[in-house]
Amino acid sequence: MKKIAIDVMGGDFGSGPILAGVVQALKKQKFEAILVGDEYQIKTKIPKRFHQYISVVHTTDVIDMSSNATDALKRKQSSIYKAVELVKSGEASAVVSAGHSGATMSLATLRLGRLQGVSRPAIATFMPSLNGNYTLVLDVGANVDSKSDNLFQFALMGEAYAKDILGVQSPKVGLLSNGEEKSKGNEVTKEAHELLKELPTFIGNVEGGDIFHSDVDVVVCDGFVGNILLKTSEGVASSIRKILKDQIKKSPISMVGATLLRRVFSNLKKRIDYAEYGGAPLLGVKGCTIVSHGKSNAKAIKNAIFQAIEYTDSDINEDIIASLKK
Amino acid sequence: MKKIAIDVMGGDFGSGPILAGVVQALKKQKFEAILVGDEYQIKTKIPKRFHQYISVVHTTDVIDMSSNATDALKRKQSSIYKAVELVKSGEASAVVSAGHSGATMSLATLRLGRLQGVSRPAIATFMPSLNGNYTLVLDVGANVDSKSDNLFQFALMGEAYAKDILGVQSPKVGLLSNGEEKSKGNEVTKEAHELLKELPTFIGNVEGGDIFHSDVDVVVCDGFVGNILLKTSEGVASSIRKILKDQIKKSPISMVGATLLRRVFSNLKKRIDYAEYGGAPLLGVKGCTIVSHGKSNAKAIKNAIFQAIEYTDSDINEDIIASLKK
Repeated sequence: MKKIAIDVMGGDFGSGPILAGVVQALKKQKFEAILVGDEYQIKTKIPKRFHQYISVVHTTDVIDMSSNATDALKRKQSSIYKAVELVKSGEASAVVSAGHSGATMSLATLRLGRLQGVSRPAIATFMPSLNGNYTLVLDVGANVDSKSDNLFQFALMGEAYAKDILGVQSPKVGLLSNGEEKSKGNEVTKEAHELLKELPTFIGNVEGGDIFHSDVDVVVCDGFVGNILLKTSEGVASSIRKILKDQIKKSPISMVGATLLRRVFSNLKKRIDYAEYGGAPLLGVKGCTIVSHGKSNAKAIKNAIFQAIEYTDSDINEDIIASLKK
Repeated sequence: MKKIAIDVMGGDFGSGPILAGVVQALKKQKFEAILVGDEYQIKTKIPKRFHQYISVVHTTDVIDMSSNATDALKRKQSSIYKAVELVKSGEASAVVSAGHSGATMSLATLRLGRLQGVSRPAIATFMPSLNGNYTLVLDVGANVDSKSDNLFQFALMGEAYAKDILGVQSPKVGLLSNGEEKSKGNEVTKEAHELLKELPTFIGNVEGGDIFHSDVDVVVCDGFVGNILLKTSEGVASSIRKILKDQIKKSPISMVGATLLRRVFSNLKKRIDYAEYGGAPLLGVKGCTIVSHGKSNAKAIKNAIFQAIEYTDSDINEDIIASLKK
């Protein structure tokens, strides 16, 4: 049975949603959940009938959002440290954490180590595209000041993820830039374009708005840019939601209208809600690390666990190594 | 009477929306519109009763979106070239163009010249914030590979615009980064943070999502990042609109609901529609240049003209020079 290490303590809302997500996942699929965190909370919040599928690694320290990522290596009693160590020692095949993402990335990179040939691991996230699928965007925050060969590697890793996990047979890979012409871009992007044009799956530069169209599967960018892209997108979506809500409240007619549109709004939410796909895989490190949103609800954790299982069922790490060798 | 040069030919939809915008503006405010483009189209599309407020500079060449910005300087018979020259010669005090933005920027920068002390002009745009105001974001595309002192100048220019045109007495200036802590950012951003912290209006780093909150008035970033931010935001908003529309069409009940919410949707559109504020001012060049969206409708052009008038009524250029001197 697949063994997944789960950091129970790191999320913004404590252990509640994490453990509820574990239970949701166990209801759908059998696996062994190695729960790392406060034993009392775990034992009381996981219903007895699931106890046969869990094991507990008790911890007392938590790296919270205000901590410094650089401290992560020293705080060996923290839930995230211990969860990563389970993958390193082979006791688990993947780790899922909704905790401090910088700490998770550092620990995964330094304790698990990079895959052969990888210069810098990258975090990949999923943006909803208009055909109902997702576009994979990487890097969204593991690296700043990426070099062109880093971007080239991100493309290969994203391509492997799209093929092996998302089941896209020949994924279209785009390079994020400020214009579609190859002459557009900052220095690094222009250099990366030159490297990427050798890649058969490369379709050229894409702009910010193209991410949501269905004609690109993998979008490559520097982590600084990717982080801003990701947070801006979340900001726009949540602002629109807020403006709609405020406007609707202003009149009884609107409230009736909104009631009739409940299904539409819920479908919209489903399409743009990160809880639907789970977390963000850290590509380029040994084993499997899924970085979940700090505000993950139970559904997001459930889906992150499924992602981790799919990842470890696939040959993605071997394929990344093989693809980088070429 | 204020004289505004308007490039009639450059927009994606030809002269129609541009001239309709001019008429809308003339209905509200008296100014002299120097219309640069095909005389026949202008004379037939502008109703006779407004002819007293317009003058025409006939041109035959148009720099369209497929042209190269570097050709702009050579094509002296193009509508945008001639429109910019009107500002240079003092015959107009501002230029408004919905044409090729790269060409407009090059011509404005090279033909009008930069304000004293400005290293690189910047394009500023407006993002809707949740309190109903706008956040000014710059640079959104004039520059790639900005240095830290460029970002510092963008901050000063944005601050001046917020004070002089938007009427924000003590604008809060933020630096776009991948985290709020000053330790976050790429090299250039971290250097810029060090420079900016001397500025009394500087509130520190802001993240992508913070742009839509009301606690920042001016957000500074490199033009490559700003372009991606802008296009991603447009992409998210238009995707949400499209998903909603598609979902609504699927059931008669939803269509009733949508009808009842018509007012809400129209208010939402108003809040996120660039036509509401007009165009994007190019800050740091002599005179006044408003870069409008290629897809501008009449309302966007009308508002861009009003922006140009407000700009030239203000002391912003003098204030930018004074602020850079300090």
